[in-house]
Amino acid sequence: MDSTRRSFLVGAAALAGASAGRIGSASAQTGQRQTNPYEYRRNWGRWGADDQLGAVNLITPAKRMAAARLVRSGRAVSLSRPFQPDQHFVRINDRGTGRSVVDYYGFMYHGVVVTHIDALCHVWDQNGMWNGRDPAKEIDTNGARFADITAFGSGLITRGVLIDVPRYRRASHVGLDRPVEGAELEAIAKAQGVAVEPGDALLVYSGREAFVKESGTYGSVGDARPGLHSSCARFIRDRDISILGWDMLDARPDKEGQPWPVHGVLYSYGVALLDNALLEPLAQACAEEKRYEFMFMALPLKVARGTGSPVNPIALF
Amino acid sequence: MDSTRRSFLVGAAALAGASAGRIGSASAQTGQRQTNPYEYRRNWGRWGADDQLGAVNLITPAKRMAAARLVRSGRAVSLSRPFQPDQHFVRINDRGTGRSVVDYYGFMYHGVVVTHIDALCHVWDQNGMWNGRDPAKEIDTNGARFADITAFGSGLITRGVLIDVPRYRRASHVGLDRPVEGAELEAIAKAQGVAVEPGDALLVYSGREAFVKESGTYGSVGDARPGLHSSCARFIRDRDISILGWDMLDARPDKEGQPWPVHGVLYSYGVALLDNALLEPLAQACAEEKRYEFMFMALPLKVARGTGSPVNPIALF
Amino acid sequence: MDSTRRSFLVGAAALAGASAGRIGSASAQTGQRQTNPYEYRRNWGRWGADDQLGAVNLITPAKRMAAARLVRSGRAVSLSRPFQPDQHFVRINDRGTGRSVVDYYGFMYHGVVVTHIDALCHVWDQNGMWNGRDPAKEIDTNGARFADITAFGSGLITRGVLIDVPRYRRASHVGLDRPVEGAELEAIAKAQGVAVEPGDALLVYSGREAFVKESGTYGSVGDARPGLHSSCARFIRDRDISILGWDMLDARPDKEGQPWPVHGVLYSYGVALLDNALLEPLAQACAEEKRYEFMFMALPLKVARGTGSPVNPIALF
Amino acid sequence: MDSTRRSFLVGAAALAGASAGRIGSASAQTGQRQTNPYEYRRNWGRWGADDQLGAVNLITPAKRMAAARLVRSGRAVSLSRPFQPDQHFVRINDRGTGRSVVDYYGFMYHGVVVTHIDALCHVWDQNGMWNGRDPAKEIDTNGARFADITAFGSGLITRGVLIDVPRYRRASHVGLDRPVEGAELEAIAKAQGVAVEPGDALLVYSGREAFVKESGTYGSVGDARPGLHSSCARFIRDRDISILGWDMLDARPDKEGQPWPVHGVLYSYGVALLDNALLEPLAQACAEEKRYEFMFMALPLKVARGTGSPVNPIALF
Repeated sequence: MDSTRRSFLVGAAALAGASAGRIGSASAQTGQRQTNPYEYRRNWGRWGADDQLGAVNLITPAKRMAAARLVRSGRAVSLSRPFQPDQHFVRINDRGTGRSVVDYYGFMYHGVVVTHIDALCHVWDQNGMWNGRDPAKEIDTNGARFADITAFGSGLITRGVLIDVPRYRRASHVGLDRPVEGAELEAIAKAQGVAVEPGDALLVYSGREAFVKESGTYGSVGDARPGLHSSCARFIRDRDISILGWDMLDARPDKEGQPWPVHGVLYSYGVALLDNALLEPLAQACAEEKRYEFMFMALPLKVARGTGSPVNPIALF
Repeated sequence: MDSTRRSFLVGAAALAGASAGRIGSASAQTGQRQTNPYEYRRNWGRWGADDQLGAVNLITPAKRMAAARLVRSGRAVSLSRPFQPDQHFVRINDRGTGRSVVDYYGFMYHGVVVTHIDALCHVWDQNGMWNGRDPAKEIDTNGARFADITAFGSGLITRGVLIDVPRYRRASHVGLDRPVEGAELEAIAKAQGVAVEPGDALLVYSGREAFVKESGTYGSVGDARPGLHSSCARFIRDRDISILGWDMLDARPDKEGQPWPVHGVLYSYGVALLDNALLEPLAQACAEEKRYEFMFMALPLKVARGTGSPVNPIALF
Repeated sequence: MDSTRRSFLVGAAALAGASAGRIGSASAQTGQRQTNPYEYRRNWGRWGADDQLGAVNLITPAKRMAAARLVRSGRAVSLSRPFQPDQHFVRINDRGTGRSVVDYYGFMYHGVVVTHIDALCHVWDQNGMWNGRDPAKEIDTNGARFADITAFGSGLITRGVLIDVPRYRRASHVGLDRPVEGAELEAIAKAQGVAVEPGDALLVYSGREAFVKESGTYGSVGDARPGLHSSCARFIRDRDISILGWDMLDARPDKEGQPWPVHGVLYSYGVALLDNALLEPLAQACAEEKRYEFMFMALPLKVARGTGSPVNPIALF
Repeated sequence: MDSTRRSFLVGAAALAGASAGRIGSASAQTGQRQTNPYEYRRNWGRWGADDQLGAVNLITPAKRMAAARLVRSGRAVSLSRPFQPDQHFVRINDRGTGRSVVDYYGFMYHGVVVTHIDALCHVWDQNGMWNGRDPAKEIDTNGARFADITAFGSGLITRGVLIDVPRYRRASHVGLDRPVEGAELEAIAKAQGVAVEPGDALLVYSGREAFVKESGTYGSVGDARPGLHSSCARFIRDRDISILGWDMLDARPDKEGQPWPVHGVLYSYGVALLDNALLEPLAQACAEEKRYEFMFMALPLKVARGTGSPVNPIALF
């Protein structure tokens, strides 16, 4: 076997292979560069070539301290939907005059149901994964060697800001006809009187529960569904957001044909994603507490080579 | 089928059946009452007959606020061991010009390996489970109907206090010959200059990593192993601790023959347990920060009918 | 803990408790005996009090030899539906200049989808499980101690006989309005010119695929669905059938209110069940081969304490 | 993305890519051809370019008929070790006056423990997988598109022949110092008075149970372990064996450095493998029945895209 061939055998996943640079110039030649929002101000290399934290680097000790200072009533709001593992089994064990009950959980947590954090390795496009790495080298059937979920092992604890889209639109929920745009995020923050700052967890509430009550289901990745437009990516990048939490996800279909209209912030900017957050109770709490900032915490499980983790994030007022 | 018989068919698990009262008087008759530490100042009924929170009720909004006020450097320390699910499988999906990697986690988290929270329903003895409930009625092969892990769905966020036993003993770790006693917890807290208060998360560091380095393994429930003596239970009850976190667990064997020498605080006092915490880095941080109190957070997954949850708890200084 | 109480703690499943005899007389007192087909000629004790094979005892070496003598064309027909495990995951491993791909299967096979064998322990009623055993003593959350699937560890190899109901009725399938009755099985066998003999595997084809094509789905245990009427049980008992294989299962709802209208042959007669068999290709083969008898083989996996096994049974002509 | 690049993205597994022809000539250039037993009389193309059955094609209806004719006593011997799934969980369900117990099985069956059939897709080397196919195109994280286990969906039913190595060697088991060679298989068959014929299932008993009793464990693929030498491959090819069943597997280490010293018969000759068969009881039965041929049956589960299946094979005398 020659060495060229061996190089393809290194990673179990037959993936990128080409460097971002080469592909970048290729797309420049074909004039496609402008249409890919994820070639805009990419954060690759910003924290060094080996960085696995991405925009989570912006959550400094000082940022965490400032977040803790936001706690003024002690009210805690869970941002997790109920979690029903695909497998949940029970065993009852004797222990002398006592007993114990233990259980087994088995699940795939990615998708549109489980509240979870995406590691930066979770998705990529033709340009490569986070920090320009080649998924063919970093990912195989045992998981990710780079930017796995253990990178967030010290927890995601920062200032949280809620953007309440239904309240701003005076509608129960975002609909298929009008995805949330980047400019709207800007306008809502202003209307709410809250500044979006570097290192924040930006939580965008789109009224998913109301939508599901009306429509029956929230679509999977291949279905039409309301959510955020790819123009949000630029806002997220320009404000140096560290974490995007959302109840609705990327709006589908995407007119620009992006594989990851908003999920692209993972690999391009290094922004952690909190998918399928439960934000209705948080919106209620913000309205009652009359403020849209709070201490945010999400503590992913430390699964070596894992691509994410189910979480039960808390907003603490 | 007569009604007596039917009552036995109600719960899938053929369990207690008898009320705590009846059993209590039975053991009084045989003179065993004194030997069961878990009949001492039981918290059953203290927060009402239907209470599922137990001593976690002591974590009030004010307590959470006070915990947040302890954050003075922003240093975050993970209290979770690396988590390796029993099953970890990967799937790679195409998405147009991009791709994603997703994974499956399957695991039993109870035992002596995974850092996890025990729900109050997890263990019981002949007197019944938390709040005097009958496990035959509350537990079946679909899990627990009472005091499951969702009771802690708003997170366990409170003041944390570390008790550093090896430092006090000037030893690398607790050994088989000398379990940690309740009086020693008291003495160490005093020596460390830290008060233990109602609603606290008490973290008892016993030097498990050093022990394992020396001995090869930390024993499962049926093995001899160092840890905490059942006399710790009274200290925990008298100080109204809400959460006990530990790296070593109940010392085994237990001379009094208790089925749950320290785990009994779950069903008797309603104290949440954080088993298999990683406390060595926390001990190091406390020494460096020169304080043994901090903001503690553990956020269990909201698994309906679940008996606990793996967690990645954080101490925030 | 007194001894009465302890006895309830022995089995994890709070189940029967009473002996069949006692319960039998209880139902006699209330006059219910006549309505339970599963108190008719029960095989309990027929092969000894500890027997775990039930009617499979009738498959003697001589019976297997006779079955092999039925092989006259060598045509092999699979009676298994395609099997899609609930979990199917892949791992690719390097091995020097080579590689391997391995996979994980995880599944619950009971229900109306997977072709599988039920062990005799799988279901019971108020009278107890196979051979009159008490499920509270024999079954816990680790599985069955009595009559588990390993009892069939030497395989189920015998003469098979197909009963083709749609062909007899000149209909594409059995409908909700007219379940298959015991007398009809008798009539069809006669019309097909095939004798049903002790130790046989009786395969009852009801046209499930045609029904599903028309109706969209075949109902689970709680749904209305076409299938076999409880009167089939007496035919199965009187002919000393060893194995019942079927594509449609117990007709639901059952007018007599039996918990297990036909599944009752498991615990009452010790008849092995082959649920969700794929019988359309077999009906086709029988018509072409012009005979309704063949060598039948189903080889359950030897899972200690298991309640059944997925199988790929073969009819060999 | 250019088309070259896209071709690498087609398969999830970054694998071969090169055609067997090209690689073949490459190894010819470097003079390595002679050392690879798996370039000897390869069966690629023998049954057409799209064939997924390999040497199992030799099991014709006539061969199955002849196998059935070997049944003369009706004695059935299981060739499966006890099967303990990695996950085995139980659920108990109410059904009116009755109940059922169901269970979940989860397992990886490849390896050295579980008795199982390997599909032809399971392993490959630098020349490609069965029939010269490119694993990069045929295998991804959803399994195999070519030569998966459903190819054997009609069962593996043929004449079985046992080769009893310990009996021939007058030793309890094969040892590390002396792997079983191809010439020895020939000699043993002759000594036993049994001819090995095309389409047979060849079962090679090496005394694994006795070895494990002595040594404690049978080594995994990376460990030293007794078993069959790569010279067996030629015997298997020349006799046109369809199925190789064995208790011990490829002897390790292999002096020639083959990735798959004997497993190579899978991809090179299309021979189905029955790994970890339990052959001690079969050796006992052959000695008692005074014959080394019998009807063999192994019936793999029909898992679409699966790379094999656990089985409970039966020898019927």
